[in-house]
Amino acid sequence: MNLTRGWLADGREILFYDRAPTQRPIVDSRDLPPVSTSAQIRHDVLADEWVAVTTHRQSRTHLPPAELCPLCPTTGDIQTEIPEPDYDVVVFENRFPSFALGAAETQPAVRAEPMDERRPALGRCEVVCFTSDHGGSFAGLPHDKARLVVDAWAHRTAELSAIPDVAQVFCFENRGPEIGVTLHHPHGQIYAYPFVPPVTARMLATVRAHRDATGDNLFGQVLAAELLSGTRVVLQSEHWVAFVPVAARWPVEVHLYPRRQMPDLAALTDAERDDLAAIYVRLLSAADELFGVPLPYIAAWYQAPTTRDRDIAWLHLRLTSIRRAPDKLKYLAGSESAMGAFINDIAPEDMAERLRSAVSDVPIASLP
Amino acid sequence: MNLTRGWLADGREILFYDRAPTQRPIVDSRDLPPVSTSAQIRHDVLADEWVAVTTHRQSRTHLPPAELCPLCPTTGDIQTEIPEPDYDVVVFENRFPSFALGAAETQPAVRAEPMDERRPALGRCEVVCFTSDHGGSFAGLPHDKARLVVDAWAHRTAELSAIPDVAQVFCFENRGPEIGVTLHHPHGQIYAYPFVPPVTARMLATVRAHRDATGDNLFGQVLAAELLSGTRVVLQSEHWVAFVPVAARWPVEVHLYPRRQMPDLAALTDAERDDLAAIYVRLLSAADELFGVPLPYIAAWYQAPTTRDRDIAWLHLRLTSIRRAPDKLKYLAGSESAMGAFINDIAPEDMAERLRSAVSDVPIASLP
Repeated sequence: MNLTRGWLADGREILFYDRAPTQRPIVDSRDLPPVSTSAQIRHDVLADEWVAVTTHRQSRTHLPPAELCPLCPTTGDIQTEIPEPDYDVVVFENRFPSFALGAAETQPAVRAEPMDERRPALGRCEVVCFTSDHGGSFAGLPHDKARLVVDAWAHRTAELSAIPDVAQVFCFENRGPEIGVTLHHPHGQIYAYPFVPPVTARMLATVRAHRDATGDNLFGQVLAAELLSGTRVVLQSEHWVAFVPVAARWPVEVHLYPRRQMPDLAALTDAERDDLAAIYVRLLSAADELFGVPLPYIAAWYQAPTTRDRDIAWLHLRLTSIRRAPDKLKYLAGSESAMGAFINDIAPEDMAERLRSAVSDVPIASLP
Repeated sequence: MNLTRGWLADGREILFYDRAPTQRPIVDSRDLPPVSTSAQIRHDVLADEWVAVTTHRQSRTHLPPAELCPLCPTTGDIQTEIPEPDYDVVVFENRFPSFALGAAETQPAVRAEPMDERRPALGRCEVVCFTSDHGGSFAGLPHDKARLVVDAWAHRTAELSAIPDVAQVFCFENRGPEIGVTLHHPHGQIYAYPFVPPVTARMLATVRAHRDATGDNLFGQVLAAELLSGTRVVLQSEHWVAFVPVAARWPVEVHLYPRRQMPDLAALTDAERDDLAAIYVRLLSAADELFGVPLPYIAAWYQAPTTRDRDIAWLHLRLTSIRRAPDKLKYLAGSESAMGAFINDIAPEDMAERLRSAVSDVPIASLP
């Protein structure tokens, strides 16, 4: 991996990850206004959770035509977010961040009334472009480029975790207009949160209580039970296991675990990264086979918080989709959205079988 | 309120709520197969939450044409779910329930392996038709019909709460195809859950801890702070207060509290019910003014569990919408869906101002 750092015209950082050593002058000659963020976080006292209020994001770029894609390389007259004629993998700070270290300047006052507590939304939001090919997808990446994305995720996780205000680093991909993706170019995002998000916090509280009571790691027990049963295992390799969980909330839901406990992507060995790049591309390719149309999905990496529970957190990815049939989506309506009670119309065992069948249909040309 | 009970051809219960005494023979002569449910709940050990798996629901009725609407009265040759030529408000058991007492028969075995715990999805799911007018809406109900819906909600809450397997009764309305509503006829639903859903459980745990630590009711303190500040109050009446919460998660989010603590809708006095029918219709009418198009929304009643925390729970409704502009929706993507960390592009104070302005534009002809 070859890393080149630079800066965009408005002061945002950009990082190029290249397979081969590459000369990158990185000169962004656009006339951009400075980035300003009004992002703040507010405390929901009843849920005891933080919510970000980001009024500057309401006007963000929304489904631009392909010739104006800001994630394509800069070629000819059209200057994009990436001031280079080509790239392998590139990461840069989001122009419309939900969390930013600069929020401390625009939101200097911490408001601490008991029923109205607000703080600047410190942190960082980054965009990860998986490929310079506008019409591509993660599932279509050759192995060495998928591996480069894994290395970029691991590098960003380590670097962002070192920022004192960051409590958790979250690497994810939203894919498909069905879930509101505003840019079609294949890309993911990284959120560095100033708090441990609710889902991670609750999960680790459960796992901690179980550890205290039994001495066992609940993640490890879940993985062992899936391997023993086999009913819901979709795919496995030397270092990774993909399965549909017993209590899947979504029509399509696959969890991808490394076989050993580790806190985050930065802890992966070289062999585990190579293996991940291969199995993840196979999994995504199979997911696209399920309904005969590209699957809208959220792919989310669950990592340890930066400073606590690193002894029990077990890195894993969850791939979920709202598609439940070629022409039907699952919506979060009253039960899911208001009550948090999920209802899944597809049995996890049936989905596992369909995914196994789709996996066997996928050519494995992309394997190393 | 005049109640008439009857049974549909497949054994489901139906209840008519009429303003005036009405003769209702209720003869459903359709040839319906018996209702069968494969509903089960499964334990997500990592989140310590229950998820319903309901494979029989995958084939449920999906956006039928208006002339085949199953929620219209039965007139002429077309037999609907409602075997009467007209109705005021009607409630009946859902043909595709997520929770049903009959699930004990099809899912008799409780599976209790530590990592794969399953139980029958006991409970009950009901449909509440607000009006026989297919093209109407809750916002368009005259006061006496809105009041009848309140009475029906209260009656169902009391009756369903008495079922030993029911832990919480949830009255709600999903409105709009944007959130996946499969029937356009104005209607809501009632879910009687066999567990306390995650959102209620967590909220009451926070409120209980606060009560134990301070002696105060956190709901009451939230309401008092909103009234004191006034910035986010949208509408108030003798018995009710509507406000946008400090940490609103959704572009449009309004909480409607009674001024006194009570566990559920069944505890409302006659005067509180009359007042609710009036203020709620005004609130919904204002919401439809916001973007110049009918607002897709979820209206959700937060009630006390049936057997615990009834001393601290404070009945309230939350009206939320995914619409953030006339042509834009908010989607739950990675941060919200995977991490539970919500990002709201609209400042709660701004939305409160817009709603106040919309309220003042609404004619109050529907007031009693």
